[in-house]
Amino acid sequence: MSKELMPEIDTEELLQMADDKQYRRLKAALLELNEVDIASFIEELDSERTVVVFRMLPKAMATDVFAELPVEKQTHIINSITDRELSEIVEELYVDDAVDMLEELPATVVRRVLQNTKPDTRKLINQFLNYPDNSAGSIMTAEYIGLKKTMTVEQSFAYIRKHGIDSETIYTCYVMDEQRRLYGVVTVKDLLMNPYETTLEEIMDVHVIKAVTTEDQEEVAETMSRYGLLSLPVVDSEDRLVGIVTVDDIMEVMEEEATEDFEKMAAMLPSEKPYLRTSVFQLAKNRIPWLLILMLSSTITGGILVKYEAAFSALPLLVTFIPMLMDTGGNSGSQSSTMIIRGMAVGEIEPSDILKVLWKEVRVGVMVGTVLAAVNFVRLMLQYPGNTLMCLTVVLSVFCTVLVAKTIGCTLPIGAKVLKLDPAIMASPMITTIVDAVSLMVYFTLACRLLGMAA
Amino acid sequence: MSKELMPEIDTEELLQMADDKQYRRLKAALLELNEVDIASFIEELDSERTVVVFRMLPKAMATDVFAELPVEKQTHIINSITDRELSEIVEELYVDDAVDMLEELPATVVRRVLQNTKPDTRKLINQFLNYPDNSAGSIMTAEYIGLKKTMTVEQSFAYIRKHGIDSETIYTCYVMDEQRRLYGVVTVKDLLMNPYETTLEEIMDVHVIKAVTTEDQEEVAETMSRYGLLSLPVVDSEDRLVGIVTVDDIMEVMEEEATEDFEKMAAMLPSEKPYLRTSVFQLAKNRIPWLLILMLSSTITGGILVKYEAAFSALPLLVTFIPMLMDTGGNSGSQSSTMIIRGMAVGEIEPSDILKVLWKEVRVGVMVGTVLAAVNFVRLMLQYPGNTLMCLTVVLSVFCTVLVAKTIGCTLPIGAKVLKLDPAIMASPMITTIVDAVSLMVYFTLACRLLGMAA
Repeated sequence: MSKELMPEIDTEELLQMADDKQYRRLKAALLELNEVDIASFIEELDSERTVVVFRMLPKAMATDVFAELPVEKQTHIINSITDRELSEIVEELYVDDAVDMLEELPATVVRRVLQNTKPDTRKLINQFLNYPDNSAGSIMTAEYIGLKKTMTVEQSFAYIRKHGIDSETIYTCYVMDEQRRLYGVVTVKDLLMNPYETTLEEIMDVHVIKAVTTEDQEEVAETMSRYGLLSLPVVDSEDRLVGIVTVDDIMEVMEEEATEDFEKMAAMLPSEKPYLRTSVFQLAKNRIPWLLILMLSSTITGGILVKYEAAFSALPLLVTFIPMLMDTGGNSGSQSSTMIIRGMAVGEIEPSDILKVLWKEVRVGVMVGTVLAAVNFVRLMLQYPGNTLMCLTVVLSVFCTVLVAKTIGCTLPIGAKVLKLDPAIMASPMITTIVDAVSLMVYFTLACRLLGMAA
Repeated sequence: MSKELMPEIDTEELLQMADDKQYRRLKAALLELNEVDIASFIEELDSERTVVVFRMLPKAMATDVFAELPVEKQTHIINSITDRELSEIVEELYVDDAVDMLEELPATVVRRVLQNTKPDTRKLINQFLNYPDNSAGSIMTAEYIGLKKTMTVEQSFAYIRKHGIDSETIYTCYVMDEQRRLYGVVTVKDLLMNPYETTLEEIMDVHVIKAVTTEDQEEVAETMSRYGLLSLPVVDSEDRLVGIVTVDDIMEVMEEEATEDFEKMAAMLPSEKPYLRTSVFQLAKNRIPWLLILMLSSTITGGILVKYEAAFSALPLLVTFIPMLMDTGGNSGSQSSTMIIRGMAVGEIEPSDILKVLWKEVRVGVMVGTVLAAVNFVRLMLQYPGNTLMCLTVVLSVFCTVLVAKTIGCTLPIGAKVLKLDPAIMASPMITTIVDAVSLMVYFTLACRLLGMAA
């Protein structure tokens, strides 16, 4: 990160202070920093110093730093502090952060954490732990401002002043009726812009955009980004407000979802943790299934070649164009599939656009194929003068390959979507395998016809 | 989008009302909707109805809807309304939205827009138009709350009540000195939680995280997501506050940057517009350069094959394993490169991690290679019983190919980063081309040695 963006942090100097046990100076330096940066610093420390440095932070700061640490450091700290310290941290954490942590901690540690949690918090945590993975419920927080519609602006401010400190975001307040059913929404901006005696009923917006607890986090992210919301209320099946999703969590979701798509599109199972913290065994386990499937599929392509043994025994030069044809086909196909998969992921392309997309890709394919074929023809005629028919075979194959690749590349992801499969699996590797088979078939069929060889 | 997330919008019914000229009912229905949804509805209308429907919206709503429309619709509306209506819209738009629009409009339309803008706004717009593409300056807005450090909480509230309506976000206020140099930051939450007579100097946070106007938007997005900020102040080279970047713009930047990476990683030049609105010619232009480069590079692989003509003339069966080897190599390599490129994009992997990454990939490569080789060996022994040496050749080649692919796949993106190139170009297509050449060389060298054939 560049210097302009944040106060210069000299990690070296801080580490030196820790080594020299200059704890007073270190503490003063840490208090100047942002919680995120303190967490990065603590990540660099050995296990002994981790606890020493963590303990020197003021209580409120300690909780925020704790929430930013990776699970290994959290476990280590939990195992090294007293029950009382632990209880203070858990009570201070936002429920969603506590839940995120508990989901990753080893079971014995989780038990100790829950034992040191007050019954109310424990109940809330247990409730949150039951929401399905990647659902709105699993990423929401219980800390929000809930107001009643009969309250005035002045009463609302008094309520916010009293309860606001504990709420993750206070800028959007939710108005509920007696049964906690979501009724309307009012922003602090609305409150500030209206006289004190106005009731919320007069100024609240009753067109509330909301999600239900079981909804997928990707849809929540799409809605918040579409409407530019800072927070989104989450209701249960009876329309009762149970939590909110905040924009910072959504930014994480967007990053995770994009990473997942990158992984799937490169023929891997999605990983749970960042690369450097994933074990070698887990990485291998994520990568082997698709490699195996694709390896076995490409033996089909090999099988096609067996049929044409006679052809390339007679003219071995034909073999040397196989890599160029396969690569060009694969690349052309993945260009199209990538555009379509991404277009569907960001909600621009719908399955109903299939004819529009197909017609577009066919025209692009003709243009691209013509250019590639022309360049190739010139190159081949220079390299193998006189071999016009062979050059024509190769060039025609390039053109057909590009056209077929573009067609398959745009159709399969949309097809996957229609079949309720994830379009991302119809990416580069899958398309390449299919296009390979088709392009080699075209190539050798053309070769046999044009060069008058027996298949 | 699912029904839970938004009030059900029956576009069909609205279109029917427009067709039947039931404008009163249509207007009532539109007023119930969110601006984003009204814009989606207007996009579906023909040019005549567009203007009719747009004109029925109340002034403030009209501006918000206008900002959400695609540039073709904006141009059409600008060309159809009076100077006075145009002036009202431009004055109401946030400066960053106005600038976004002007950057895409045809020059003649821009002239008419600027003629209908007040001198102050025009000056601001011109200033914004000069910031480099994709810089913090180009995405920031000039509407923010700037306070003085000597102000009290009460004075601050009075100021916000007076000026807040025009500000894109009022929740984070920036404290400046007399020279407009950025001094500190105070949130509305801080103001709400403190007594009226407190001065800002006492409660403001002086550790301001900020960006300079020329900084890249990607870095701005990284900072805001790292620190979970709702807005980030932007200063000029003399540390004077000139604007803020808000979180909704950042969500767009994150989506754009991810799309750009997807495109680059699939060997395309990044596109400016969404797929469906990009012309066929432009799409072809974006795709041809890399396809040409990669096609010509893979003729090198073809050149390698020429050297081994004798080998596959003697044993044509060898040719049939080429697709399987090339595909497996390409896929293994792109798995690694994708993980590393994405890891660097989200800031998890740094070039200094190269040895850690390499050691990890080598171990993963050995595991994956062993499994693929073993499965392949069983399959080959069943298909070609007795041909043990040939099977061994193929299986050993698979193992070496996977190992080489993983090594190249993780090294090249990091190398690109060190050379200040975009790591995303070292993705699947490039890696595949390189790995193809290496794996075929390994394959035929092994074949010549093990099967005792002349090269």
